[in-house]
Amino acid sequence: MQFDTIIRNGTVVTASDTFRCDVGIRDGRIVSLADTLENAAEIIDATGLYVMPGGIDSHVHLAQPSGDGIVMADDFESGTLSAAFGGNTTVMPFCMQEKGTTLRQSLKDYHAKAEGECYIDVSFHLVVTDPTAYVLGQELPALVADGYSSIKVFMTYDNLRLRDDEILATLDSARSSGALVMVHCENEDAIRFLIGRHEANGELAPKFHATSRPVAAEREATHRALSLAEIVDTPIVIVHVSNREAMEEIQRARARGSKVAGETCPQYLLLTADDLDAAELEGAKFVCSPPPRDKESQAACWEGLQNGTFDLFSSDHCPFRYEDDQGKLNEKGKRNFRWIPNGIPGVETRLPILFSEGVGKGRIDLNRFVALSSTNHAKLYGLYPRKGTIAIGSDADIALWDPEKTVTISNDILHHGADYTPYEGLEVKGWPVRVILRGKTVTAGHELVAGKGSGTYLERTRSSLL
Amino acid sequence: MQFDTIIRNGTVVTASDTFRCDVGIRDGRIVSLADTLENAAEIIDATGLYVMPGGIDSHVHLAQPSGDGIVMADDFESGTLSAAFGGNTTVMPFCMQEKGTTLRQSLKDYHAKAEGECYIDVSFHLVVTDPTAYVLGQELPALVADGYSSIKVFMTYDNLRLRDDEILATLDSARSSGALVMVHCENEDAIRFLIGRHEANGELAPKFHATSRPVAAEREATHRALSLAEIVDTPIVIVHVSNREAMEEIQRARARGSKVAGETCPQYLLLTADDLDAAELEGAKFVCSPPPRDKESQAACWEGLQNGTFDLFSSDHCPFRYEDDQGKLNEKGKRNFRWIPNGIPGVETRLPILFSEGVGKGRIDLNRFVALSSTNHAKLYGLYPRKGTIAIGSDADIALWDPEKTVTISNDILHHGADYTPYEGLEVKGWPVRVILRGKTVTAGHELVAGKGSGTYLERTRSSLL
Amino acid sequence: MQFDTIIRNGTVVTASDTFRCDVGIRDGRIVSLADTLENAAEIIDATGLYVMPGGIDSHVHLAQPSGDGIVMADDFESGTLSAAFGGNTTVMPFCMQEKGTTLRQSLKDYHAKAEGECYIDVSFHLVVTDPTAYVLGQELPALVADGYSSIKVFMTYDNLRLRDDEILATLDSARSSGALVMVHCENEDAIRFLIGRHEANGELAPKFHATSRPVAAEREATHRALSLAEIVDTPIVIVHVSNREAMEEIQRARARGSKVAGETCPQYLLLTADDLDAAELEGAKFVCSPPPRDKESQAACWEGLQNGTFDLFSSDHCPFRYEDDQGKLNEKGKRNFRWIPNGIPGVETRLPILFSEGVGKGRIDLNRFVALSSTNHAKLYGLYPRKGTIAIGSDADIALWDPEKTVTISNDILHHGADYTPYEGLEVKGWPVRVILRGKTVTAGHELVAGKGSGTYLERTRSSLL
Amino acid sequence: MQFDTIIRNGTVVTASDTFRCDVGIRDGRIVSLADTLENAAEIIDATGLYVMPGGIDSHVHLAQPSGDGIVMADDFESGTLSAAFGGNTTVMPFCMQEKGTTLRQSLKDYHAKAEGECYIDVSFHLVVTDPTAYVLGQELPALVADGYSSIKVFMTYDNLRLRDDEILATLDSARSSGALVMVHCENEDAIRFLIGRHEANGELAPKFHATSRPVAAEREATHRALSLAEIVDTPIVIVHVSNREAMEEIQRARARGSKVAGETCPQYLLLTADDLDAAELEGAKFVCSPPPRDKESQAACWEGLQNGTFDLFSSDHCPFRYEDDQGKLNEKGKRNFRWIPNGIPGVETRLPILFSEGVGKGRIDLNRFVALSSTNHAKLYGLYPRKGTIAIGSDADIALWDPEKTVTISNDILHHGADYTPYEGLEVKGWPVRVILRGKTVTAGHELVAGKGSGTYLERTRSSLL
Repeated sequence: MQFDTIIRNGTVVTASDTFRCDVGIRDGRIVSLADTLENAAEIIDATGLYVMPGGIDSHVHLAQPSGDGIVMADDFESGTLSAAFGGNTTVMPFCMQEKGTTLRQSLKDYHAKAEGECYIDVSFHLVVTDPTAYVLGQELPALVADGYSSIKVFMTYDNLRLRDDEILATLDSARSSGALVMVHCENEDAIRFLIGRHEANGELAPKFHATSRPVAAEREATHRALSLAEIVDTPIVIVHVSNREAMEEIQRARARGSKVAGETCPQYLLLTADDLDAAELEGAKFVCSPPPRDKESQAACWEGLQNGTFDLFSSDHCPFRYEDDQGKLNEKGKRNFRWIPNGIPGVETRLPILFSEGVGKGRIDLNRFVALSSTNHAKLYGLYPRKGTIAIGSDADIALWDPEKTVTISNDILHHGADYTPYEGLEVKGWPVRVILRGKTVTAGHELVAGKGSGTYLERTRSSLL
Repeated sequence: MQFDTIIRNGTVVTASDTFRCDVGIRDGRIVSLADTLENAAEIIDATGLYVMPGGIDSHVHLAQPSGDGIVMADDFESGTLSAAFGGNTTVMPFCMQEKGTTLRQSLKDYHAKAEGECYIDVSFHLVVTDPTAYVLGQELPALVADGYSSIKVFMTYDNLRLRDDEILATLDSARSSGALVMVHCENEDAIRFLIGRHEANGELAPKFHATSRPVAAEREATHRALSLAEIVDTPIVIVHVSNREAMEEIQRARARGSKVAGETCPQYLLLTADDLDAAELEGAKFVCSPPPRDKESQAACWEGLQNGTFDLFSSDHCPFRYEDDQGKLNEKGKRNFRWIPNGIPGVETRLPILFSEGVGKGRIDLNRFVALSSTNHAKLYGLYPRKGTIAIGSDADIALWDPEKTVTISNDILHHGADYTPYEGLEVKGWPVRVILRGKTVTAGHELVAGKGSGTYLERTRSSLL
Repeated sequence: MQFDTIIRNGTVVTASDTFRCDVGIRDGRIVSLADTLENAAEIIDATGLYVMPGGIDSHVHLAQPSGDGIVMADDFESGTLSAAFGGNTTVMPFCMQEKGTTLRQSLKDYHAKAEGECYIDVSFHLVVTDPTAYVLGQELPALVADGYSSIKVFMTYDNLRLRDDEILATLDSARSSGALVMVHCENEDAIRFLIGRHEANGELAPKFHATSRPVAAEREATHRALSLAEIVDTPIVIVHVSNREAMEEIQRARARGSKVAGETCPQYLLLTADDLDAAELEGAKFVCSPPPRDKESQAACWEGLQNGTFDLFSSDHCPFRYEDDQGKLNEKGKRNFRWIPNGIPGVETRLPILFSEGVGKGRIDLNRFVALSSTNHAKLYGLYPRKGTIAIGSDADIALWDPEKTVTISNDILHHGADYTPYEGLEVKGWPVRVILRGKTVTAGHELVAGKGSGTYLERTRSSLL
Repeated sequence: MQFDTIIRNGTVVTASDTFRCDVGIRDGRIVSLADTLENAAEIIDATGLYVMPGGIDSHVHLAQPSGDGIVMADDFESGTLSAAFGGNTTVMPFCMQEKGTTLRQSLKDYHAKAEGECYIDVSFHLVVTDPTAYVLGQELPALVADGYSSIKVFMTYDNLRLRDDEILATLDSARSSGALVMVHCENEDAIRFLIGRHEANGELAPKFHATSRPVAAEREATHRALSLAEIVDTPIVIVHVSNREAMEEIQRARARGSKVAGETCPQYLLLTADDLDAAELEGAKFVCSPPPRDKESQAACWEGLQNGTFDLFSSDHCPFRYEDDQGKLNEKGKRNFRWIPNGIPGVETRLPILFSEGVGKGRIDLNRFVALSSTNHAKLYGLYPRKGTIAIGSDADIALWDPEKTVTISNDILHHGADYTPYEGLEVKGWPVRVILRGKTVTAGHELVAGKGSGTYLERTRSSLL
């Protein structure tokens, strides 16, 4: 047998090309693309299907402690299962440094949580919350050498935010270590000020989450992050951009000569702040940060996906159960929006939404879909060429998409740990009908084929942006 | 006698009009403008002269303690004398809150320093360095009611800077109190970072002052200040803008609907960062913050004066002696630029420079000169219509300008306390040959006519921007 | 008697100042502004009123032949009468060169039409439609020397438009002659193309006038005019700007260093393209070029009045009767929008609209009102300082405004020749209750005081823009 | 034998991916990409080489008559030979409609000129110079159906330029026919005006070619073309963009929602207007339109290649001999720049310049190189997926690049018909050492392997932009 598996008669799509061919897989890698292949243990018929690189979701929160007894709805098992059914073969969750501890200690915890639990491949971004001299001067260089080549810093959340001097020091360390820095850009002080104003006015419903985190607070922090990176002279990624003004900051930074990557997410394409004003406390289901904005912002984000302002389309999957006193409707959260945990589920719906609303409605082409959902993630986060494309030598991480399959999104058909989806009732056309990880089928239709633990941990190399 | 004084046969210039007429003054006020006036105790011949509103310099530092034994080169006596000879009839120095004290206590000090010392009229901006609940909640509203209607906050200088939450609280208090807030916009943390980098590299000469405070640090803080003001929903003044990028932030804020005033200064029109690289330690003479930039920035600032980006042209007079161990060349400052006191003299040269380089070279017209140097200051800081124009009922604060008089600027002919001028050797055409305060001549040619104490303290009303 | 007339106890408003004083007039000129004046043949009580420079409407069409038997609804008599009742003391209609004739010949006609007919002062812009070598090389320089210091060119209307090479030659002649060029910017070919498309689709109602002249056609021609002026290196005026995109062209040209003046009109603040879709053929009442746009464009135009994009606010008064087979509803016009004469009346409502919607609603202050409605017109078109301000030596052209007077605009109360006003039913607060031309009252309340012919022709000097 | 040819051990580069593999070719097409291939008649060792899609130069002038006895230096034989040695496998010259004739007649001529002469594949753009109703209404739709799916219009050159109404009609026909329109954007009238001014001043040297065609003339025409396309609602290509201002027009059009492709050329990256001021008449060698600008414009064009403003990098090869009275130094051209034929050679140097200055200097990566030099041309002009990539099923049009080979460009080593190269003496690193057309080697090192006539004519399908 020349191949372990042949995917036959599909249409291969890469970030630049679309062509009909057979795909030959051996030892988990793509070893042949040809008009016709024979001679394999397994032959998968892909007639009428797109053969795409498996999705890489580089912005996912799994099994993170959230304080105050709040529990995240997905651990590594359910999170990677949900991701697989959504067409992904790699997810990149965060390893959150607990203050007072080292990054290594935190990594130990997260590796332990992930070990043997994953259905697809995983790699961690390191969240720096306590940038001590030891962490920046000693740990980070060593960790980058060990394949942890990206870090994240927060400009919001009382317990996570770094001050400007800390951000500068972290960027400086990342620059010399060869790490790529992701930044969550919202001005915490401005948000605290507005929360205080809302509280003083007795404005406590979920919808005030959106008005307490306005575009100006995101735009401000975005510009500040870009300016600090300009001063240190190192590239950054602006994650989960929600609106045109923040996008313009990215464009202006590039025009000044800075290297910047931009990311947006499904919630900024399909939801608006009005969703937070749903009857009863249903608005809590849509509480995430930055909050969804308005229709014009949705249009802007689509433009950004088209014109290259955004390189990445991620889920920012951060799931909480709704009817749960450890979730959205905890006791304090029912009384005041500030206690509603921030985040929504989306790892399973990200790709069908982008395919249906993007490719299906003519906003982007198939190649741009692949770039935004997989290739660019691999390149920017040091997984390329092992991951992110269909090319000789790459891992056989493949999603077969049926462009004609119509699905109505409903929480019933999803595999995450949350008890709702923000996209309940949305009809999409196009669905990943089979997901293959390193040559092995993980999911086939509604069926789970692979066992727990088939996903592995991925060391990474230097970002293409550096 | 119908008038105390008649200014005869001059050409009156206001912010919009230019016309030949006589000016009749009674009880310190302008009471008549007419083709011909008779009947006065004093008749001043203004044939061939422009009769302009006396300059108002709304950004002046006098008698401020600078820490570390550094002494400011001008007190209220020398500072107002120098201002008068430079064509001004009002200056607005700062009353600096000492940390741990109240604004009232600080005001007491500054009033004591000014009392009986001034040659022209004076009013204080309040610098808030310690925005306690008492200061913001109780003092500020009362002080605004008492005529202290503007405050200033710093985003730089370790001992002066406010954090974002403090700026927000201060803006909020200003909003409800009716005070206008001026902001010095430079990102302190970025500057500290760059100073640290310079020190690590052994780069300690005066020229590194400029590179440690780059355009990006000013642009960042400018955008942040404007964003915080947008969030609080209150107007601000961006002072001493040095470059095009910071100007664009003002323009963008206005395009978003914010009310913003902008100010630039002579140093950004005539000096560049190269001046800080003068032989020996002469560069120390040009150390001020933000630092002068480059030729393109000078052109940008001229554009801003023309197109309305800037409303104000002030001196930011902040004088230190050069050859003085309490001044620029103190022991620490000789060894490391970070200890060179920030600031340069300019209250006496501001108007001749703007007249000669601006009006004389066709960049602005006479009316714009009056607006930038006097009228807009009066309107924005609550002195109008008492000050800032030549109109019936206004104070007879008048400078007579000889547009043909050519002067080579030299420290010898100036009246400030500094031992140098950054504009040594600059030839200007146009000079204020007589300055009249509330109807009384203060200076006539090189002669000092008025006595010390002829200037008075001015209470102010609400800014036109509010 | 020291004065012919004293205006007592009013509040004088200029483009920069507002102050209470009496105004003394002698021989038609303002000779004294003072706290109190006595001794005059006539004393006008202005208590509670604003004493403003009479309006100058620099964009008015009177008695122009319109071809095809269409008759303009105002001649010099009715046009200047209507203007006077609307607070104006000067109007600047066009003298249209008839093709094949010289400018001098056309001037002869227009002077003849105006002679003895005018209630207020008048001066002509020259419309160049046939830029022969003789016209550009010989006539224009001589005419400028004779006080005809402005010309206008059209980029639209089959019979009026100039080609680019003709515009370049005209700008070049204006540059050397010292004339200021006004440009009507719409791309005629694009409009013809769209009219053709509409006709092919049977889309013939008045509302298709708006869609046949889209923003892109105006923006294109605006940028082209500015580029041609940049190449020739001479200032121009962009008249009747209707939308943000054209405004941005003006801003961009200024940022490139060009000298440009901008004008907008009441129709772009109060009307929209929807008005052209009124029931029956009522939409014809709003047919003018460029057409009114949408609400966002209105907001943009207000911004432009505030931020200096616009220097001029004019009426573009171009009146036709509605129910008249020589007017809007001529036989061909009823069947196809392309035959509806372009233009609407507005000389009498311009200033009350700007006062009420602008000053009254806090969008602009009183001084900006004066600049936009009078002073800037005088300066840009060479009438200053004789006209456009209240200053010693200027013509006593004054409008007394009652800021409290509320009026519902209705065609019944207007004095133009049209049988409708586009602003029927609009309530405005603030009205010019007395208009004084060179010291003589023209209108007082509803009463006409002056006789026909009290207006005179005005020679002009060089524009302040040149 | 399974394959006709195997390219072994090279690194394949596509517009998105880079990976080591063997390439199997059969019947002129790529049929296999695999880690190892065996079994072929011919095995080409590509160790250490990049295996790239052959270059497509979509902007080339060959064998065009230039009037006045001027002769283009390349016919189809020499032009395609030169292109092949420069790494290209397809060129797209223009078929110029002679006024008074039909497009079909012109095509007959050009097909006759090309027949049997070409070394690589060829396809024609149709230049519309005489847009009669017949041409637009009847011919164009039929020609598009026959595979002539792109046309070009000129806004400059007296004998080629279309008026706006003609451009509109042409765009409208292209829109309904499915043709993509390329536009040469310079304002002819402005250029005539400036040539006239230069002639009047006796400014006749080659350098005045540049000043007679300033950025403003290009920016104006670019904005106009984009506006006309916006009005017709059809995509266009802006060819040979030379500067930032024209680039901004493209960016603004996209921001308005227009579909636009942009192209730049080597001359705008490496030459400046100063080159036209070379001693004697050497400046004539650099006369092309638009002219090269300045260093800042070069930087802008590089930015545009990086950030997606430009989709295409072409040569605009338009060769004339220098020392030749039928070329640059014809009798009239020696006396007056306006008679120097416009155009420079570049088809052979385009790719080495982009590789060396772009990839080699870190400005763009390998994938972007492939996109700009080949893939995007194929997609935009309807040749994809047959041409422009290395994928299963595509033509085996391949260039093997040695990234280490250093070459000093000199006219001696080039194969075009011109007697000079504008890049004489430029050292480049990276060179196409073998060029393969549909599986057959055309050039190998300095050796010509294929015979004349191996190139064929290509019918094309609809542009990806439509």
